[in-house]
Amino acid sequence: MTTFFDRLADRIADIDSIVSVGLDPDTDRLPEAVRDADLPRWEFNRRIIDATHEHAAVFKPNAAFYEDSDGWQALEKTVEHAQEKGVPVLLDAKRADIGNTSRQYAKVLDSVDAITLNPFLGRDALAPFLDREEAGCFLLCRTSNPGGADVQELELADGNLVYERVADLASEWNTNDNVGLVVGATTPEELRAVRERVPDLPFLVPGVGAQGGDAEAAATHATAENGAGLVNSTRGIIFSGEDSESAFDEAAGDAAKDLKERLNQYR
Amino acid sequence: MTTFFDRLADRIADIDSIVSVGLDPDTDRLPEAVRDADLPRWEFNRRIIDATHEHAAVFKPNAAFYEDSDGWQALEKTVEHAQEKGVPVLLDAKRADIGNTSRQYAKVLDSVDAITLNPFLGRDALAPFLDREEAGCFLLCRTSNPGGADVQELELADGNLVYERVADLASEWNTNDNVGLVVGATTPEELRAVRERVPDLPFLVPGVGAQGGDAEAAATHATAENGAGLVNSTRGIIFSGEDSESAFDEAAGDAAKDLKERLNQYR
Repeated sequence: MTTFFDRLADRIADIDSIVSVGLDPDTDRLPEAVRDADLPRWEFNRRIIDATHEHAAVFKPNAAFYEDSDGWQALEKTVEHAQEKGVPVLLDAKRADIGNTSRQYAKVLDSVDAITLNPFLGRDALAPFLDREEAGCFLLCRTSNPGGADVQELELADGNLVYERVADLASEWNTNDNVGLVVGATTPEELRAVRERVPDLPFLVPGVGAQGGDAEAAATHATAENGAGLVNSTRGIIFSGEDSESAFDEAAGDAAKDLKERLNQYR
Repeated sequence: MTTFFDRLADRIADIDSIVSVGLDPDTDRLPEAVRDADLPRWEFNRRIIDATHEHAAVFKPNAAFYEDSDGWQALEKTVEHAQEKGVPVLLDAKRADIGNTSRQYAKVLDSVDAITLNPFLGRDALAPFLDREEAGCFLLCRTSNPGGADVQELELADGNLVYERVADLASEWNTNDNVGLVVGATTPEELRAVRERVPDLPFLVPGVGAQGGDAEAAATHATAENGAGLVNSTRGIIFSGEDSESAFDEAAGDAAKDLKERLNQYR
């Protein structure tokens, strides 16, 4: 069996890109060109995928933007279309629950290739995901928001910070070579320190686009020894047409290509 | 404006019950009587609500069991029906994300009365929920699963454990009187200790039914000084008909009443 991270490393090598294209079709921001479609979010995503897939190591839809009846239909079609284009799908769900509820959430891995998870509930809560050897599991470690420090940077009795311990736990839990970490680019020193701590865990680094994170640090540290790792941009790609005279999908394609090239300077 | 916890305290006093009835319509376990319905999960929930609402301080659907197109329709109908019966709805979603994604998730509070949240991403991640003065926000503190200890019981440099600090943070973040905690009944000493630490925060205590938690500790400590607090059972109520000759909804009504009376011995 090929692990998700092996497949991801192959794709990154094939297209020379570590760009994760976030697919958050905020219904308040959809361009006029798709608003009259039957499923506007699906029409938007379809055109974004068609325009950006050559530069996309993965597509990363965030579950928050699909949580209604039409939304789940749009998400299903989006996942299928991305995969038909040969691009794996990482569902940004930040899920964690316990027992049979966690098993229920994990069924989504029948469709998507990888998922983001929240480590606060511990190993057994994540087991239904971690047990899927073919799937990728990115655990939140140090998030890119200012308040991320509230819990993640508490100092432990042994001198480590909580997010450092989470990185160590993620390593322990990586018995199937399917665990990665989410580490924000808004804290480049922390990004470097976590990379040194867990050289074999691929990172998903958000915060490079609208959040203003450090592209150099992100590109330098995202990738693990196995060649897998991702730097995500969402609004900086999919809504780049708002400030442009090009069609929204054309603008998104250009933005994805630009980010790929910017990151490749540092890889 | 009446806060969620004021409304909850009133309902608890009215019906003399702190029972939260979990609505997790696992499609693998639905009784034959509903399997041919257009929306089996909605038909199941409708009959459970009709049979249990007199004993239900809240209904607590877990989002995991509704994450598909039909599921969201079933959830919408379930929320409306519960509220028509006068019962508030607590969506067990354990959500946390950042920035505009968190704002997107928080829109669900237009429909439901309260929600469970994961504190790992910090205050600003939860702000779109905490800013809703009329809503109830239950933050995970010490969960009822064994692995809950992996992160929640790490010892901090100041001698506190992570979950104790989370309880303190929840108190700090409670500027709108709308914050409660999720504290498992599988650890009764911890439940008592958290109650002493934050006497004014209502608890949602899971783990009393299928998970075998301590009903006495749960009933004794769930309720805050303001009279609000909940003890949840899900499978022990909604699937009690599996071991019974009664109709599934009748069995659920009996189980909810039994739990109410068992908990009331200790209140």
